[in-house]
Amino acid sequence: MREWVFVTSSRPKFAEAERILGRRLIQHELDLPEVQALDLETVIASKAQLAYKALGGAPVIVEDTGLFIDCWRGLPGALVRWFEETVGPGGICAMLEGFANRRARAQTIVAAYDGSLEMFSGEVQGQIALAPRGDQGFGWDTIFIPDGEIRTFGEMTSEEKDLLSMRKKAFLDFASAEGRNA
Amino acid sequence: MREWVFVTSSRPKFAEAERILGRRLIQHELDLPEVQALDLETVIASKAQLAYKALGGAPVIVEDTGLFIDCWRGLPGALVRWFEETVGPGGICAMLEGFANRRARAQTIVAAYDGSLEMFSGEVQGQIALAPRGDQGFGWDTIFIPDGEIRTFGEMTSEEKDLLSMRKKAFLDFASAEGRNA
Repeated sequence: MREWVFVTSSRPKFAEAERILGRRLIQHELDLPEVQALDLETVIASKAQLAYKALGGAPVIVEDTGLFIDCWRGLPGALVRWFEETVGPGGICAMLEGFANRRARAQTIVAAYDGSLEMFSGEVQGQIALAPRGDQGFGWDTIFIPDGEIRTFGEMTSEEKDLLSMRKKAFLDFASAEGRNA
Repeated sequence: MREWVFVTSSRPKFAEAERILGRRLIQHELDLPEVQALDLETVIASKAQLAYKALGGAPVIVEDTGLFIDCWRGLPGALVRWFEETVGPGGICAMLEGFANRRARAQTIVAAYDGSLEMFSGEVQGQIALAPRGDQGFGWDTIFIPDGEIRTFGEMTSEEKDLLSMRKKAFLDFASAEGRNA
C-alpha cells in the first residue's frame, strides 16, 4: 500500500486518522502558511501543494476541519482555529448569546496530493451548545452537539465520536479511493 | 519622486491614501492570496512580496487594516474582512452582546517593498458601538468609535475621519520615510 505522509501538527487528529483507517500512517509536522478563506477547499488545496513541495514530492495527505455556523453565515468556517486560539470554545458560545439559531455544520476535507489533487469531504450537521461540556476530544469538540445526540463530542468516548464524526467519512472515502487506485 | 504602485482592490482605501498623501498614486488590482494570521505584520509582509513578484519587480505599497477587540483577545484582527463578508458590522455588534468590555484597537500597516521591506503602522484606540451608526466611510467604519469622540467613523466626513484615522499615521510615516530616502 502507498506510503502517505500525513502532514499535521495535531497529535489528536493524527491519532484519530490512524484509528479510523485502522493502520499506521507517517506523521510529519510542517509549519506551512495557510491561505485566508472561509471555505476549506481553498485552504486545503493550497496546503496540499505546499506540503508536497516541502517534502520533495512525497505523496501527502493534509486535513482541515471547519465549523460553519448558520446564523453567522458560515463564520468561522476554515478560520475556526483563530477563534479557538483567542476566545476559545467558551468564547464562541458567548458570542452566540444574542442569536436564537445555533445550527452549525462541521466539515472535514482530506486532500491527497501526489502531483494531482483529490479531495474527500465529510459533514455533520448539529448545533452549538450553550456552554462547553465534557473533557474528551480536542478543539471545539466540547461545544458541538451532532444531530441525534444530546451530548457534545467532548462528552463522548473516541469510539462514540468516530461513529458520527465528519473526519470519519472523509478518511474512509480517502481509503476507498486509495483501494480503487491500488 | 518614486512611482509606487498601490496594490489594492478597494477604491475607498485608494482614495483615502491619495487624500492623505496629497498626491496621485498608481492603483493596481491583484487578486493575491493572503496568509491566515491574526496579526497584520505576517499578512502584509507576505502580500507585499507576492505583489512585487506579480508586477515584475515594480516598487509596491500594500495596506492592511485590522480590528483587534480586547474581550475577544484580538479577534478578528487581520481577519476582519471575513467578519464583514459574513455577519457584517451589525453582526459584530450582536456577537459582542454578551460582553461588557467593548474596547478595541484599529491598526493599519502600510508596507513598501522594492526588494526590501519597510512597514509603517498607525493605531487608534476606541470602542465598538452598540449598533452600526452613520453612512459614511466603508468596512466597519459604522461601528468604530475612536477615543475622544462619541461618533463612529461612519458618522464623520472623510476630512474628520482622516484627522483621527489609523490609516493617516501609517501613510504619513511612509511619506516621510520616502522623503528621507529620496
